[in-house]
Amino acid sequence: MSFGPCWDMLVYMTEATDNPIHGARAKARCDALGVPPYSDQKDGLFRPYLGPAHHATLGCIAQWMDEAGMSVEIDAVGNIVGHYAGIPADAPVLLLGSHVDSVRDGGRYDGMLGVMLGIETVAFFHAQGRRFPFAIEVIGFGDEEGSRFSTYMMGSRSAAGLEQEIDDTIRDSEGITLHRALADWGLSVQRFGTARRQNVLAYLEAHIEQAPHLERAARPLGLVRGIASQYRYRVTFTGLADHAGTAMGERRDALAAAAEAIVSIEAVGAAGPDDLVTTVGVLQVENGAPNVVPGQVVMTMDIRAVTPGAREAAAGEIRSMLDALSRKRQVTVQVERIQDLQGALCDETLNRMLGEAIVETTGEEPPLLLSQAGHDAMVMARCAPMSMLFIRCAGGISHNPAESVTVSDVEAAFDTLTRVIEKFGEDR
Amino acid sequence: MSFGPCWDMLVYMTEATDNPIHGARAKARCDALGVPPYSDQKDGLFRPYLGPAHHATLGCIAQWMDEAGMSVEIDAVGNIVGHYAGIPADAPVLLLGSHVDSVRDGGRYDGMLGVMLGIETVAFFHAQGRRFPFAIEVIGFGDEEGSRFSTYMMGSRSAAGLEQEIDDTIRDSEGITLHRALADWGLSVQRFGTARRQNVLAYLEAHIEQAPHLERAARPLGLVRGIASQYRYRVTFTGLADHAGTAMGERRDALAAAAEAIVSIEAVGAAGPDDLVTTVGVLQVENGAPNVVPGQVVMTMDIRAVTPGAREAAAGEIRSMLDALSRKRQVTVQVERIQDLQGALCDETLNRMLGEAIVETTGEEPPLLLSQAGHDAMVMARCAPMSMLFIRCAGGISHNPAESVTVSDVEAAFDTLTRVIEKFGEDR
Repeated sequence: MSFGPCWDMLVYMTEATDNPIHGARAKARCDALGVPPYSDQKDGLFRPYLGPAHHATLGCIAQWMDEAGMSVEIDAVGNIVGHYAGIPADAPVLLLGSHVDSVRDGGRYDGMLGVMLGIETVAFFHAQGRRFPFAIEVIGFGDEEGSRFSTYMMGSRSAAGLEQEIDDTIRDSEGITLHRALADWGLSVQRFGTARRQNVLAYLEAHIEQAPHLERAARPLGLVRGIASQYRYRVTFTGLADHAGTAMGERRDALAAAAEAIVSIEAVGAAGPDDLVTTVGVLQVENGAPNVVPGQVVMTMDIRAVTPGAREAAAGEIRSMLDALSRKRQVTVQVERIQDLQGALCDETLNRMLGEAIVETTGEEPPLLLSQAGHDAMVMARCAPMSMLFIRCAGGISHNPAESVTVSDVEAAFDTLTRVIEKFGEDR
Repeated sequence: MSFGPCWDMLVYMTEATDNPIHGARAKARCDALGVPPYSDQKDGLFRPYLGPAHHATLGCIAQWMDEAGMSVEIDAVGNIVGHYAGIPADAPVLLLGSHVDSVRDGGRYDGMLGVMLGIETVAFFHAQGRRFPFAIEVIGFGDEEGSRFSTYMMGSRSAAGLEQEIDDTIRDSEGITLHRALADWGLSVQRFGTARRQNVLAYLEAHIEQAPHLERAARPLGLVRGIASQYRYRVTFTGLADHAGTAMGERRDALAAAAEAIVSIEAVGAAGPDDLVTTVGVLQVENGAPNVVPGQVVMTMDIRAVTPGAREAAAGEIRSMLDALSRKRQVTVQVERIQDLQGALCDETLNRMLGEAIVETTGEEPPLLLSQAGHDAMVMARCAPMSMLFIRCAGGISHNPAESVTVSDVEAAFDTLTRVIEKFGEDR
């Protein structure tokens, strides 16, 4: 497939680029991409993996990468990669990236802002004719949100060269298989292996915070200590449905069992390190009625932690608790793990450079943040040193049309990224 | 309105009455009334208050009462009452009754069996030309289940002469007001007061157990010690919806609060007298998602007890617990009482006579049961000494097409009722 120039966008950007400030342009481009044809929903933004909006968006990004002096490719999984060569031509690569897909009714900056900032950073050095002893690549991952298929981070997992078991017969909500959607782009799961990035020195991701800590601290930028590992489970309690007159001692109440479990799950979260969090967000009583002792309850359980091993320790403790509870209450407890996202700690050397760059930009030591949300960076950490730069977002609100950033914060992020790249060059 | 003879039924009953045994006929009549036109649902039984099936059913019952030697009236609330005069003609009244309405997809014996047994009992004495120093009335209450309007026990509350605040603008699921449904039968809420039964000596109700205790004890009949008082509540927990990465200490988790409450509600039930039961049967997490800390949870709470004061004490203890929990967790807890059914203890003198009659019939002391289910008897207890006779039902299953009784158990109930009436006569 070919991605032609996007004329509508060029007209729009002629105005936007009248503003010489890179941060302003990065934000304006995110806004421009927040409507059809760069969104598959009429009002608001929905840019699912391999959909028409994804396709239109890559056309624009390809053009902007080209203008910024990069050669452009769409890899085997649908990621877009711009390459700004170093000296020598086969120099290793510093990767700047984030994702270009969105959730339904999503925000304009989640993911896309990091990609746009990567392009601005390269454009800045390209305009000066500067080359480094490393190449700079800007990557826009196609499937981070998993908002179309029941997949997650296929883009970064392919780029990191991770083994993936992918069911390409899974379908989206309209019945289109992943296989079919890939084939329409000339892609296939069989070739995902070729998307592995080679010779990567480091991975840097700029992203909105999606939490209110920077806003509360009144700081534009934050340094990330690590990204939480996540487990997600479906937990089913099966007791015996009975009339509400049944004596307390004769009941096998699935909801009372689930309630006791929820209190314990919360206690496990509270007793662990500060970055351990446990959440039961969905609970359904099957055939519930006011005068019926519940016979079955299904709930979700989410466990996240940055501290290595804390998630696994919490999960083990909860499993033991559920086993004991099951025996005590004669209620069957079935636990299915439906997601396992390995977290990552940011690289200390990269963080030191990033921290210095933030101080030079803002004049203040940045807050050191934890990311409880998942990011491509947690996957890329498996193949290279990784760090993240968080940008303040209003109210911490994300995955929402109300997502908002200021031009001056984005400009500060741009300044910081250029400084980091210069520092990175000094270290070579 | 007039209730004509039901010819279809007469044909059916010609066969059924070939069997001379009263219990068999009582059961056969329940079965005959379990299908259209005595049901408003095509398959299975649904006989809502003031519906066409209720109307057709009263036609049959009126005829059977007439055949059993009773004068018949439909009272101001739609109850059917058969009067078998005593000596003298204005002698006080022994009431035998239960309800003729059903839940949707209900069973054939719940309520109706008690009415049919009343008719058989009178028929038995009428065939012998026996009169007592008291009249016998058989009453079939029209609205016990509240399965059409959001009402409950309007029939027995009117018969007991209780003050009722009834909103006659409430509508059924098809939009028909109670006012309209009553008017179609020539009835009105304003005249409910005239349905009060006068000069009542005692109220006796035979009913299937709706619990498995008689089956477990392998006994056909049981004596009832009392009927539980019931409170029902809607409880709403309002915290703050937040992303699942929020630190445990910063959360106001509505589901964790509800879970802690459920565990405490269960503990209050278990710590009280054996007949106290507490149930949370419905729980809904508003806008729940696996990665969102729940912001609002709505649940029901049902509290029942036979022991006087136990329900009130439990409700008070739970309220205090919820107040403390609300303060501790900074989660608003709103408690709305949506039902208050006053329970009743069975009359000791009546129970002694009923117990002796069961022993004479079955040769065994009957189990002494508690009724956690509500019955018209708990309302009638407000105007007269009351007692109940429970009849074994298969598996304790009720409110279900699978509801089932045996002819021999029903026959035993019939024998017991005739003996009780003779004993009652000896006491006069």
